[in-house]
Amino acid sequence: MTENEVAVVNVGQSDFGELEGQRVTEFGSRAVREALLSSSVEPDDIEEAYIGNVATTAQDQTSVIGQAILREVGVTGIPIIRVENACASSTCAFQEAYKRVQSGESDIVLAMGVEKMTGVPTEVALKDMAGAADAEVEGAMGMTFMGLYGMRANAYMNQFGNVREELADIAVKNHDNGLKNPRAHLQLNVDRDDILESRPISDPIRLLDACPMSDGAAAAVIARTEIAEELVEEPIYVDAAEMLSGNYLEEVEFWREELDERVAQKAYSEAGIGPDDLDVVEVHDAATIGELMHYEGLGLADQGEGASLVRSGDVMLDGRTPVNPSGGLKSRGHPVGATGVAQICELVWQLRGEAGARQVENPSIGLAQNSGGALVGEGGVSTVTILSNR
Amino acid sequence: MTENEVAVVNVGQSDFGELEGQRVTEFGSRAVREALLSSSVEPDDIEEAYIGNVATTAQDQTSVIGQAILREVGVTGIPIIRVENACASSTCAFQEAYKRVQSGESDIVLAMGVEKMTGVPTEVALKDMAGAADAEVEGAMGMTFMGLYGMRANAYMNQFGNVREELADIAVKNHDNGLKNPRAHLQLNVDRDDILESRPISDPIRLLDACPMSDGAAAAVIARTEIAEELVEEPIYVDAAEMLSGNYLEEVEFWREELDERVAQKAYSEAGIGPDDLDVVEVHDAATIGELMHYEGLGLADQGEGASLVRSGDVMLDGRTPVNPSGGLKSRGHPVGATGVAQICELVWQLRGEAGARQVENPSIGLAQNSGGALVGEGGVSTVTILSNR
Repeated sequence: MTENEVAVVNVGQSDFGELEGQRVTEFGSRAVREALLSSSVEPDDIEEAYIGNVATTAQDQTSVIGQAILREVGVTGIPIIRVENACASSTCAFQEAYKRVQSGESDIVLAMGVEKMTGVPTEVALKDMAGAADAEVEGAMGMTFMGLYGMRANAYMNQFGNVREELADIAVKNHDNGLKNPRAHLQLNVDRDDILESRPISDPIRLLDACPMSDGAAAAVIARTEIAEELVEEPIYVDAAEMLSGNYLEEVEFWREELDERVAQKAYSEAGIGPDDLDVVEVHDAATIGELMHYEGLGLADQGEGASLVRSGDVMLDGRTPVNPSGGLKSRGHPVGATGVAQICELVWQLRGEAGARQVENPSIGLAQNSGGALVGEGGVSTVTILSNR
Repeated sequence: MTENEVAVVNVGQSDFGELEGQRVTEFGSRAVREALLSSSVEPDDIEEAYIGNVATTAQDQTSVIGQAILREVGVTGIPIIRVENACASSTCAFQEAYKRVQSGESDIVLAMGVEKMTGVPTEVALKDMAGAADAEVEGAMGMTFMGLYGMRANAYMNQFGNVREELADIAVKNHDNGLKNPRAHLQLNVDRDDILESRPISDPIRLLDACPMSDGAAAAVIARTEIAEELVEEPIYVDAAEMLSGNYLEEVEFWREELDERVAQKAYSEAGIGPDDLDVVEVHDAATIGELMHYEGLGLADQGEGASLVRSGDVMLDGRTPVNPSGGLKSRGHPVGATGVAQICELVWQLRGEAGARQVENPSIGLAQNSGGALVGEGGVSTVTILSNR
């Protein structure tokens, strides 16, 4: 079956952070408004909308959250569908939107993500995020996300040796990048010692290895390529959009990003490229060990060589393959349902040369990797999206 | 673009009711197992899965609930995506699955819905359902669903005269049907007086006008028609699957199902039929007034003539167009995230002549209507799915 080619027309993002006193409808609609205004797309042009959100229903707000946000900008009467896959929710929303345009059912579709995580009791927010694949059983055992990242980091170091300093360097890199991103949540000027001396929270993970809980929203208007080219001077092409859930594993290798490997392979194959072709990358650094392992899962480094990649400087803003120029989850923040589309926003800005002080030099191809749910096994998902300016 | 034709291969449903002590993974996987076993479809044959669920994240369970349920039956490693649109969540999941097969991206896809509503504090369940489009503002004003249905019933009667007795007759019909459905939640032998004398909860709505809060799950395996025909003797064809959100309305007509009208028109046009062609119908009778108004929205009766349709006997099990042979939300129960696919299950059983004591005579074409969110305006959705045995 012939498929349409798909491009991002434009994007929008609210500030990420503690948006005190602001409702999801406020900052959610702000992201959509920016995406629409910068696209010359009218609310009536949007044929369908997909929204990623994890826990708003749980937080006294509402179900049908997409409709509640979009009526603020006059997008009504169309199919509006909420999608959830934990921290990968809005990438899944983006990919559903992509499929609708790709299959020819719609010409212009909106994808967005939104989350409010501050201003609710920490206990509630933690429970919402208790994550693993099974909060009721595993959550009660202390297997919150940072608990799991700690286990992963230990398993990794047991297999490949100490990478503690390189993990700190990842945090420093992302905070340095985030200082150049006015929309980033945690604006911290930190060095390696600050990370290493911060409070232990799940050995060897320390406080400054972890991303914050944030509020925020991000949106993207996507369209059939021909239409996108009429609407804006520089549409950004979607070359691959892949998502998979984890496999049942006979033997769990906590030190390996098996799921990333499978998803990345599909995406590279769809886009007709390999990891060496990437000019800018956003990955799911909910904890520093996550970023390091995603290097390996995506093929930016061989298995066990993630720390060498850090030491090489290749992932720095001026390196060969800058990773998380936005500041990543670590600094930009992690409003879980919004993170995936925020990664897409960053790639679009980078590929258009609009990223200001954190602009990567002349990138052509970008990749975003966004995870959700359990870190290993059947309870998790990974997504890979590849964009280019051709 | 050419589109594939799509059929339901088979379906499964857990008992609906108070499934005390059972986790969503238990009764959720039971519904999936029934759908798979009756389809001769192996877990590995499922290429993608969509799951409808509203509030499990809010209830101490987990996000990525689809993955948690499907690993119980060995469905892992594929795209699994949760979809939410309040009480229409699983119809939206079904329709997303349908689109994936229709567009040719996948051959065999699983759609399901699941919800656990009992065994959580009533306050929490009510808050989860507080519904309107905006629980934080409207919910606090008492605009829970039964509050809204009471307002609607008053507006309707103000416009068209008293239909109080016919509303009671709808409840009696659905409970009579439900008594013939072993999977139905509320098995009540009631007459008109029982309904009229039950406790008022939102005048003129009384307790026995309202559906219960239930636990339950339902699943459907759908496939490209050619494949479905190889797998089972009698696939049930999907002739239309439409969903829309509400329009912004200058003047809200609380007595009119404007959204139903738009969605039904699209669905009839897609299927090439009209309301007179329907042999069996399932509608969203969360309250009896809902069922009456859906008659009009779907064109089974003219505006203001819903009560006449009830009096005519046409909607009875042995009538011209039986409505809610399953017992509807009123008797089968309303585990919100599961209701839509449960309607699909009923249509499939009816169209195959497998509905036992509640079998409608020789039906060829069935329609399911499932609503979610606010009852009027931009905050709600309506879905219409048309199935046939050709």
